[in-house]
Amino acid sequence: MKGKRTDEDFMRIALQEAEKAYAADEVPIGAVIVKDGVVIARAHNEKEKRNSAVRHAEIVAIEKATKKVGNWWLEGCSLYVTLEPCAMCAGAIVNSRLDRVVYGAPDLRYGFLGSLADLPADYPLNHRPQETRGVLAEECGALLTSFFRGKREQKKKN
Amino acid sequence: MKGKRTDEDFMRIALQEAEKAYAADEVPIGAVIVKDGVVIARAHNEKEKRNSAVRHAEIVAIEKATKKVGNWWLEGCSLYVTLEPCAMCAGAIVNSRLDRVVYGAPDLRYGFLGSLADLPADYPLNHRPQETRGVLAEECGALLTSFFRGKREQKKKN
Repeated sequence: MKGKRTDEDFMRIALQEAEKAYAADEVPIGAVIVKDGVVIARAHNEKEKRNSAVRHAEIVAIEKATKKVGNWWLEGCSLYVTLEPCAMCAGAIVNSRLDRVVYGAPDLRYGFLGSLADLPADYPLNHRPQETRGVLAEECGALLTSFFRGKREQKKKN
Repeated sequence: MKGKRTDEDFMRIALQEAEKAYAADEVPIGAVIVKDGVVIARAHNEKEKRNSAVRHAEIVAIEKATKKVGNWWLEGCSLYVTLEPCAMCAGAIVNSRLDRVVYGAPDLRYGFLGSLADLPADYPLNHRPQETRGVLAEECGALLTSFFRGKREQKKKN
């Protein structure tokens, strides 16, 4: 591979993960974790597959990354996720001490990194990651819009 | 077993779980999930064992309970936990649609069900569990105090 990869490059990998979720009839959200310019974990939402509301893309990615580095402390790591994290995932990002979070589309209903709240900024927690918002926001959002449109049409047919 | 079990009875089981964490040199927090008066999941903090900041007692209990009932939606279930949940766990409780949360000791530094914030009450999320606070608070808190005192003494010796 030539040259240093950009935020958009890593978000494209997260988008590929979101596409996998879509194909599996899961809400299409994908995440990757990067350390020293290398992807160490990639994951997508698997709530339905695993029957667990805990298995958001971010949580699955964090679990994979911690296994990879052998430490719960994800120092020097950045998380890329296609949708703004919910309260649970924003909390998990703080708990795991991720250096940086980059997200695509905002989640105006449930987002906790800028929409409903900015969890690490609004509260005196013990860690505050850098945040970058809106990377490939349109593509990330379009995938979700398409998924939910399909769901509504399916519902009408039934 | 005779008679209906009380909140204190279930919190005692959560405390047993917290004791297991203590014995394993983990921050002593335990949780149980109850449905129709029956314990369907019991768990303790396993952050160090699993090298994952995601593996708080509540998350482990939720994952066990969802496996047991075969559904991510924990309708009709109550979670008992010895310490007030953090933002991640409060978010997981909302995401899993638990009917009720009962906790022991407050967490004045990181608690998101009454201390720093009351996540389901303060934000327009899509679910709001009933909350009961302070059940066996002293015992739950004393276990944590003892654990951290031991850690400080250990540190002094080294």
